[in-house]
Amino acid sequence: MRDRIEIPAPADFHVHLRQGPMCSLVTPHIRAGGICLAYVMPNLTPPITTTERALEYKTELEVIDPNVEYLMSLYLSPSITPEEIKRAYKAGIVGVKSYPKGVTTNSDGGIESYEIYYPVFQAMEEVGMVLNLHGEIPSDAENNIHVFNAEEKFLSHLESLHARFPKLRIVLEHATTSAAIECVKRLGDTVACTITPHHLVLTVDDWAGQSFNYCKPVAKTPADRISLQRVILEGNNKFFLGSDSAPHPIIRKSTAKPYEPCAAGIYTSPILLPLVAHILESFGALERMPDFVSTFGRRFYKKENTQVTVVLRREQLVIPNFLNKDEQNVVPFWAGKYLNWVVDI
Amino acid sequence: MRDRIEIPAPADFHVHLRQGPMCSLVTPHIRAGGICLAYVMPNLTPPITTTERALEYKTELEVIDPNVEYLMSLYLSPSITPEEIKRAYKAGIVGVKSYPKGVTTNSDGGIESYEIYYPVFQAMEEVGMVLNLHGEIPSDAENNIHVFNAEEKFLSHLESLHARFPKLRIVLEHATTSAAIECVKRLGDTVACTITPHHLVLTVDDWAGQSFNYCKPVAKTPADRISLQRVILEGNNKFFLGSDSAPHPIIRKSTAKPYEPCAAGIYTSPILLPLVAHILESFGALERMPDFVSTFGRRFYKKENTQVTVVLRREQLVIPNFLNKDEQNVVPFWAGKYLNWVVDI
Repeated sequence: MRDRIEIPAPADFHVHLRQGPMCSLVTPHIRAGGICLAYVMPNLTPPITTTERALEYKTELEVIDPNVEYLMSLYLSPSITPEEIKRAYKAGIVGVKSYPKGVTTNSDGGIESYEIYYPVFQAMEEVGMVLNLHGEIPSDAENNIHVFNAEEKFLSHLESLHARFPKLRIVLEHATTSAAIECVKRLGDTVACTITPHHLVLTVDDWAGQSFNYCKPVAKTPADRISLQRVILEGNNKFFLGSDSAPHPIIRKSTAKPYEPCAAGIYTSPILLPLVAHILESFGALERMPDFVSTFGRRFYKKENTQVTVVLRREQLVIPNFLNKDEQNVVPFWAGKYLNWVVDI
Repeated sequence: MRDRIEIPAPADFHVHLRQGPMCSLVTPHIRAGGICLAYVMPNLTPPITTTERALEYKTELEVIDPNVEYLMSLYLSPSITPEEIKRAYKAGIVGVKSYPKGVTTNSDGGIESYEIYYPVFQAMEEVGMVLNLHGEIPSDAENNIHVFNAEEKFLSHLESLHARFPKLRIVLEHATTSAAIECVKRLGDTVACTITPHHLVLTVDDWAGQSFNYCKPVAKTPADRISLQRVILEGNNKFFLGSDSAPHPIIRKSTAKPYEPCAAGIYTSPILLPLVAHILESFGALERMPDFVSTFGRRFYKKENTQVTVVLRREQLVIPNFLNKDEQNVVPFWAGKYLNWVVDI
């Protein structure tokens, strides 16, 4: 049994760092969780849609914690032009994130309105930026689309985009289904996929009536969960860590009112590497850890780094229940549980 | 457009009336919701497993509100013998309810351990008692059984029981899937099915992160919901109202903790008939109301009654948010929404 894991500069290719006091609270948790590089989501209020705002946000994050490399992204929206893409690329911005809602501005067009973004995608393909897809289509009762099949129904759009822009690097974010895993495996080398730690352990049974386990995309079936585990176990280099760590004030998770859903999101940043090691070890994939949390993602994003090494040590860690005592209180995933690994600092 | 509906002695063939202060609070809501006959579930603490206890509970209910006819049931468990069944029948007890957990006392036997109850079922068939099935098998990750397919996976057990005891009247309770509807339609006349009002309007999207809409079986897909609506619209006499109205103190619905699911259950008793009329009208099935909420169920249970008539009047009704102010506070389904019907008292 191993007692130590050495990982070259671990990277989280999908993380939400928020704004204001929440940003100040959670940004230092990236490094505490063992991560050296964070690919930062642009879904602020308002969303980040310009190079200038992305750079400003990056500076804010660097002021809070300069020990993490922040890769920035823009939020796909009609205001983004091919010119803005070129400007963003020159400024070091790495990708563009597409959310289902942004796609459905034209209400009846649904996901088909990706076509209006083709000039943007073409510019991204030319300069070499990454397209990050939240791979769900909006619920639509008339067509029997709901949270449980929204990802599977999205996959034809991923295939079309890849066929149209074969050199555009695309990441299907936070995959939750066997169908998504198989689809990504089938497509070319420019298509990759992030996997969260929580989707490696949760199923629908865990979020039924349990708001702390509620996130989007929702966790699916035990069979889907096995597919996610298996592709990591196989060491497929198209699949790597994107935690989708998404902090919400505890009040937005713990308290429900009729008609008001709790916030969707699971928070894993402060314990990310120990959590991933614990989970990977549980299904025999501990040896895949360096590839899954660093090498594969860094290679896809062309951000390889062999200068830094982070060490995990086998030691019991209790996941804290409450991170601080003010109103920005956030509760991490698996709060109160034991993990078998700590980051050796 | 109709302004009045006359219904012969409306009946709710599946309702939870609880114990203690909660029982005192909710039992009078049966009649307030327009219902004359309540088929009462036996899942108290401890469960009702003897004729004596069932009769005692019935008396308690009659003391609280003598204006409702209470049909009593026993909780299927190993202590129930064929002799107890005969005793129960003579005492006027109507049925026996089977819950998945009770079935899985032998941990690895699962639902197959129904076989140990065959002598009980045979006695029930002989005297003419009804078997009420909570039609889900327990979650089992290794076999990919989870809350979303637990009902469909149960149906083979319903078919087997019906084949073995063709004269035993069986009710599949609170159906949620197209598969269940099709199965019940396919089986003989001794197999019927209850449908709740909330499953006629909810889908998985409504309970994802919304604990007030969380109940078991969980609401499924829009296509499943259409199947439930359609079988009522068709006027199929095997399908009738069982509200599964299940009150919980608001604190058990509104507040989540990590690892502690909120209580499963939706409370509809105080507004039951107006709610059903409102929902049936929304999909063009208002004319089916008397059959769905009275005739079909009463005929199956051999409890026909044409002495009493309840009238619904078209008038706006706001569903109250809070039913009282003490710790037994329960929030009804659709609290704060408007219904288009009231019970004319």
